[in-house]
Amino acid sequence: MRKLFAEFFGTYWLVFGGCGSALFAAGIPDLGIGFAGVSLAFGLTVLTMAYAVGHISGGHFNPAVSFGLWASGRFSGKELLPYIVSQCLGGIVAAGTLVFILSGKEGFAIDNTKAGAFATNGYGAFSPDGYSMGSAFVAEFILTMFFVLIIVGATDKLANGKFAGVAIGLALTLIHLISIPITNTSVNPARSTSQAIFAQGESLSQLWLFWVAPIAGALVGGFIYKLFLDKKETL
Amino acid sequence: MRKLFAEFFGTYWLVFGGCGSALFAAGIPDLGIGFAGVSLAFGLTVLTMAYAVGHISGGHFNPAVSFGLWASGRFSGKELLPYIVSQCLGGIVAAGTLVFILSGKEGFAIDNTKAGAFATNGYGAFSPDGYSMGSAFVAEFILTMFFVLIIVGATDKLANGKFAGVAIGLALTLIHLISIPITNTSVNPARSTSQAIFAQGESLSQLWLFWVAPIAGALVGGFIYKLFLDKKETL
Amino acid sequence: MRKLFAEFFGTYWLVFGGCGSALFAAGIPDLGIGFAGVSLAFGLTVLTMAYAVGHISGGHFNPAVSFGLWASGRFSGKELLPYIVSQCLGGIVAAGTLVFILSGKEGFAIDNTKAGAFATNGYGAFSPDGYSMGSAFVAEFILTMFFVLIIVGATDKLANGKFAGVAIGLALTLIHLISIPITNTSVNPARSTSQAIFAQGESLSQLWLFWVAPIAGALVGGFIYKLFLDKKETL
Amino acid sequence: MRKLFAEFFGTYWLVFGGCGSALFAAGIPDLGIGFAGVSLAFGLTVLTMAYAVGHISGGHFNPAVSFGLWASGRFSGKELLPYIVSQCLGGIVAAGTLVFILSGKEGFAIDNTKAGAFATNGYGAFSPDGYSMGSAFVAEFILTMFFVLIIVGATDKLANGKFAGVAIGLALTLIHLISIPITNTSVNPARSTSQAIFAQGESLSQLWLFWVAPIAGALVGGFIYKLFLDKKETL
Repeated sequence: MRKLFAEFFGTYWLVFGGCGSALFAAGIPDLGIGFAGVSLAFGLTVLTMAYAVGHISGGHFNPAVSFGLWASGRFSGKELLPYIVSQCLGGIVAAGTLVFILSGKEGFAIDNTKAGAFATNGYGAFSPDGYSMGSAFVAEFILTMFFVLIIVGATDKLANGKFAGVAIGLALTLIHLISIPITNTSVNPARSTSQAIFAQGESLSQLWLFWVAPIAGALVGGFIYKLFLDKKETL
Repeated sequence: MRKLFAEFFGTYWLVFGGCGSALFAAGIPDLGIGFAGVSLAFGLTVLTMAYAVGHISGGHFNPAVSFGLWASGRFSGKELLPYIVSQCLGGIVAAGTLVFILSGKEGFAIDNTKAGAFATNGYGAFSPDGYSMGSAFVAEFILTMFFVLIIVGATDKLANGKFAGVAIGLALTLIHLISIPITNTSVNPARSTSQAIFAQGESLSQLWLFWVAPIAGALVGGFIYKLFLDKKETL
Repeated sequence: MRKLFAEFFGTYWLVFGGCGSALFAAGIPDLGIGFAGVSLAFGLTVLTMAYAVGHISGGHFNPAVSFGLWASGRFSGKELLPYIVSQCLGGIVAAGTLVFILSGKEGFAIDNTKAGAFATNGYGAFSPDGYSMGSAFVAEFILTMFFVLIIVGATDKLANGKFAGVAIGLALTLIHLISIPITNTSVNPARSTSQAIFAQGESLSQLWLFWVAPIAGALVGGFIYKLFLDKKETL
Repeated sequence: MRKLFAEFFGTYWLVFGGCGSALFAAGIPDLGIGFAGVSLAFGLTVLTMAYAVGHISGGHFNPAVSFGLWASGRFSGKELLPYIVSQCLGGIVAAGTLVFILSGKEGFAIDNTKAGAFATNGYGAFSPDGYSMGSAFVAEFILTMFFVLIIVGATDKLANGKFAGVAIGLALTLIHLISIPITNTSVNPARSTSQAIFAQGESLSQLWLFWVAPIAGALVGGFIYKLFLDKKETL
């Protein structure tokens, strides 16, 4: 149970902090934090929670990461479903809190005909900078693959494991620096789901991609580490 | 006494560096550091002082954090009042230094009819981006709750404690990346008080919220960790 | 073989993340990440992969670094060629992926008559801010020299080696903060080659400088550490 | 001798990277790194060199820091002069390299009638944002005092010393985030001297302040730690 609470609070913080910084602070004229600030915020949600509760649950905060760790042999298949449920619940409660806070500003409404509304992920007409479904799929796949490869590598017994929280958190910052214009950056089905549930419209119809591509990439990332990089399984 | 000096200097640095960066450097045309730079500055005041004097006083620099650590059973109730007095004094002397430096620029005056004047915190008409009192309260409550949860978690004996200064400092950066537009970000009653004392006007009338919400959030954060996440008290 | 896979994936990530952030996200109006965001991205590719696969291959991801480590006596000459081939292959496959993703955006074409097109490096008319060949050569030489000096120093047995990944990654961020306007920043022949192969034109004719200057600087950096700073070889 | 080489290269890197990023990259329209990027660059020069050569010389790279460490009893008075000479030489050679690189751009000239020309420090009419001599003095004094306090605290035997390079480097980033608009930020007489020698004019007449204020602040910072914070000398 402690593990599931840790995943709940961690994913809450990821969505509240990452999507919240995008919604509250990215676009303020002149002083706003822009995509770079949002990228930093997403990464810091993971960095901070990895050191705060990573020793409890492993600090996944992301269904794709849980799948990837399972693929690399580091996480039990039995725990997959409860972890993912906790993660999605954490994300959804966080998105609800964001709606509450935003509703305290005059004129608040989610205009789900615009790309990236309520920090949703999307492709094609709903890609922030107009990238096709194919580009979006490849980007989400590659980025999650490397995210999992970094997670599995940085927590390898032979690695310098105490820095894993820094490396993993800043990997998420890097991923956002690259890809916000492509899909508004998911690599995390829980984060995509929480925003789509409140935004509705196209973000729900496109939600499949933000489950399929990250999880597929995560599985491949986990297998690549196991097959090509892990010491126990040299070619 | 060494502890109280450490808290005094730490909170001085937090206010001088965090509010100072906002007042001197945020809004310079084209080259200014914006909200992202101010967020980084606040976090780095805590990161740097945590490594410099954290081994002396624990490195709170914030009355809400002292309350939160007390709630989690890590800090003695007897020390609460002297710590809080030191923190407020450090903040106030820092704010006085900021006034002195600003007065060396032609035309300096604090226009306390504007939101965020002299880096004050506020809500409603004094929220930088127009958020209501309810939104401001919830934001300050949630952010301080997670701040304390991260502090208590990252300093847990089972955690990777040497990184606590990094995690806690960057948590404050993250909190500012999210919420400067909402309340100008407090999560720290000493920081709000120091600025309000010099700005006067509405910032004093609204000061109550920046004591009540952060301390309430901090207490809940401390209890949550103790009840749901601490190993000794599994459900 | 594990080492060569690690270098392949590491250099893929460096080019995909560094050049990708420049191509996708740097110039978005108002919200774009700018040169500072690209600088952070390049550094984080190395920081993240240093902790993920550094324990496998040493984490060079850069032919100049391999040469510099050889010069300092830390890397075997026999491994130089296979490392460099892996690095170049990783970079080229990454650049190919970037082309694929970019081609999913309407109107994509590489205009190789412009400085910095497809994140290529250049000097003279192809320097982003108009610096001459001489300036470009000196900048690339000095920056790679210090990059290698930092790598060799931070991994010295007497140094605080666990932080090497942080120091080396952020050194690459710093190098980009300084020099994107001069040459679009190489200090890495594999990264220059991967982009030039797809951009063609002048970026190919100028490619020699981004092999010669970084490798020359790296060799000098390695020798300087060995001669003037290494404890075993005091003057 | 190894120590003096380390200080030479470290201060070279501080001036080349910090002032270089300001001169080459800060003001590029739309994409430039601004004051926040320059702040990051200065801090990263120290962070990277602290891990690279800190184990050799202690990693001062700054005459005021050497004075401050002497005041706190951590550095021998006999070494003060050779350290300071090495630091100034490193800075001056770096500034010369910057002039060479800049001269490869058409129309380069140092206009020393403008505040901050060639990254010089100044006050009054030569303060980037018009702060008086008194404000400039107080800012440089306070900032260097805290810089030394952080250095001495973070390297205390009771502190978490392996993070000192991170804390000290990021302290310099923080100091720049606060004070570039006030004096263009010195806290380092070697850095001010190297730029003034090439810029001449008022930057030379004002140079005294950037020796006196940082060194005075550093001495007070060292004494404060020794008197009020160091365990061995409790009140």
